[in-house]
Amino acid sequence: MYTYNYLFDFTKNVFMKMGCSEHDSKIIADVFLAAEMRDHASHGMIRIKDYYELWKARRINTDPQVTIVHESPSTAVIDGDNAVGMVVARRSMETAIEKAKKAGTGWVAARNSNHFGIAGYYAMMALETDMIGICLTNANPLVAPVFSISRMIGTNPIAVAIPAMKQPPFVADFATTPIARGKLAVAEKKGEKVPFGYLQDKNGLPSDDPTILKSGGSMLPLGGDRVHGSHKGYCLSSIVDIFSAVFSGANFGPFVPPSVAYLPVLDKKVGKGTGHFFGAMRIDAFQPANEFKTKMDEWIETFRSAKPVKGQERVMIPGDPEREAEERNRKDGIKLVPAIKDDLVAVAKELGIEFK
Amino acid sequence: MYTYNYLFDFTKNVFMKMGCSEHDSKIIADVFLAAEMRDHASHGMIRIKDYYELWKARRINTDPQVTIVHESPSTAVIDGDNAVGMVVARRSMETAIEKAKKAGTGWVAARNSNHFGIAGYYAMMALETDMIGICLTNANPLVAPVFSISRMIGTNPIAVAIPAMKQPPFVADFATTPIARGKLAVAEKKGEKVPFGYLQDKNGLPSDDPTILKSGGSMLPLGGDRVHGSHKGYCLSSIVDIFSAVFSGANFGPFVPPSVAYLPVLDKKVGKGTGHFFGAMRIDAFQPANEFKTKMDEWIETFRSAKPVKGQERVMIPGDPEREAEERNRKDGIKLVPAIKDDLVAVAKELGIEFK
Repeated sequence: MYTYNYLFDFTKNVFMKMGCSEHDSKIIADVFLAAEMRDHASHGMIRIKDYYELWKARRINTDPQVTIVHESPSTAVIDGDNAVGMVVARRSMETAIEKAKKAGTGWVAARNSNHFGIAGYYAMMALETDMIGICLTNANPLVAPVFSISRMIGTNPIAVAIPAMKQPPFVADFATTPIARGKLAVAEKKGEKVPFGYLQDKNGLPSDDPTILKSGGSMLPLGGDRVHGSHKGYCLSSIVDIFSAVFSGANFGPFVPPSVAYLPVLDKKVGKGTGHFFGAMRIDAFQPANEFKTKMDEWIETFRSAKPVKGQERVMIPGDPEREAEERNRKDGIKLVPAIKDDLVAVAKELGIEFK
Repeated sequence: MYTYNYLFDFTKNVFMKMGCSEHDSKIIADVFLAAEMRDHASHGMIRIKDYYELWKARRINTDPQVTIVHESPSTAVIDGDNAVGMVVARRSMETAIEKAKKAGTGWVAARNSNHFGIAGYYAMMALETDMIGICLTNANPLVAPVFSISRMIGTNPIAVAIPAMKQPPFVADFATTPIARGKLAVAEKKGEKVPFGYLQDKNGLPSDDPTILKSGGSMLPLGGDRVHGSHKGYCLSSIVDIFSAVFSGANFGPFVPPSVAYLPVLDKKVGKGTGHFFGAMRIDAFQPANEFKTKMDEWIETFRSAKPVKGQERVMIPGDPEREAEERNRKDGIKLVPAIKDDLVAVAKELGIEFK
């Protein structure tokens, strides 16, 4: 078991060794640790090695000039200068919040960025100032549109955070596929099959084999098949892709650059880097903040009081599982599986620091 | 077969007879006909009788004062004065567009409204002025949260319209359930079963019986079951509900008033009427409009060129099926099934007009 502080300091030091400023390295470490604490380990320490390899391959810029390239009273477009995604994303969400302070809402599209960790982190930044936060990002193409066998689109997540008064905030943070890519990777490592409805083979036939992605298969959009509404999942992923990439001038759909160094840089570019989209809405642009938050308490309490099916203790509110994980992990510490520890030891050694 | 003009004039006259102004009646008829033309007949002429019955029961206001009750540079809250939903929704989207002209984006939450027809209609209003349009609404509670047997939430649709240059616009308009309520009603009328994944019985067991909604059953969120991501569908419906109702001060979740007169007014109210949410984003708040629209052409052409699975001719772009239906229905006319015709004849007779 590791403490929060040990992993935070290690992560910060890794990125400082790679040339990031202390300011940026702290932001990056904060997002990595948020993923671990909230039980989204697929976006946590397991990815340090990916960033390190991208940096070694000179595919990521650790000394960036993140700049606003276009704006209106309630909007901005940010160019991330190929920085580590967390740095671009944090700056973008800060800009959205600043815009919202004056215009009621703020909306920022970011281009020329990279993988930014968990989307929920940025959406939740808005909560501190009584705002609603929204965060979208596109991602490597692994998902086929309905009735297609081409990998055109990512698992493109949506995060929305809404503050309440006495109740904890409502925080939704989910991929627009039935399951996150990371969970398929876990099944693959364990040699397990997965339920039908997640994957298809290269001919578009349903598959339960997580290795199928290595032989021309693809992930399916939320809904799974047409009968169960996969055209709606396809709509959602597409909207996230367009907001993240077309609004900002980033690469869209099949042209999103790989977030790992072992996949080659794509030949064709239709924009700059990976794209994200951020929104901040001041509560009191709609309702007096206390009225709104009291009403959110009532919303949350109403949904908590829904009758559970037999065998379930309760009905959950989006954000409950992650918040409970955070409490548990803060108390018990963070567990890393041996393979991840080995990766971190190796990265540390190459950078002249230590991980144990 | 009926012509567009015949049904438009009839619908307009029905609402004028009920006391709506000619201006409002034209808006209402326009939305009804848009539903018919786009093959969303479940939101078309079949619903005239519902509005008429609500009016007879004095549950809807045909002479409303729709007013802005709160605003910031980029936001507004509108009170619909219990008007026909189309009147509130059109005014709200116009306000969002006006806000966007000055602030870059405009966001309007509406309360004290009623059923407004198809969400896509309002999202598409933004296209005329080179804006992206967004429309959400809550709806009667028919859907159970994940792991619950309580009907807490509606089929809460999401509509997003994005303009392109030479290509037709991207228009997504979908319920956050695997299937729309209207399609279950059709299966029920035909005495047919439906696929598993849409419904559960009163104990939370999977059901293929569309009549189950009459005996304590409920619809399932997009994703169907937890394994296939129904927690994501639940998140989506919840977000739509909160944006539509908590932002505006309307009734949320289980308290959304019925859109039909044969269901009683609910005892408990947590706000006013039904709620909607509208967004308009000026393209050039992010990118020069022509650059953006040319990039959207490229996005659409890229996705159209995805390889179809065997047995399918092509991969569709959101909005394709409805646009093609519109072309076909404009040419061939609109067909109404005998039961709907009978309803319209009866409504017409009571109002002293004619339908044949």
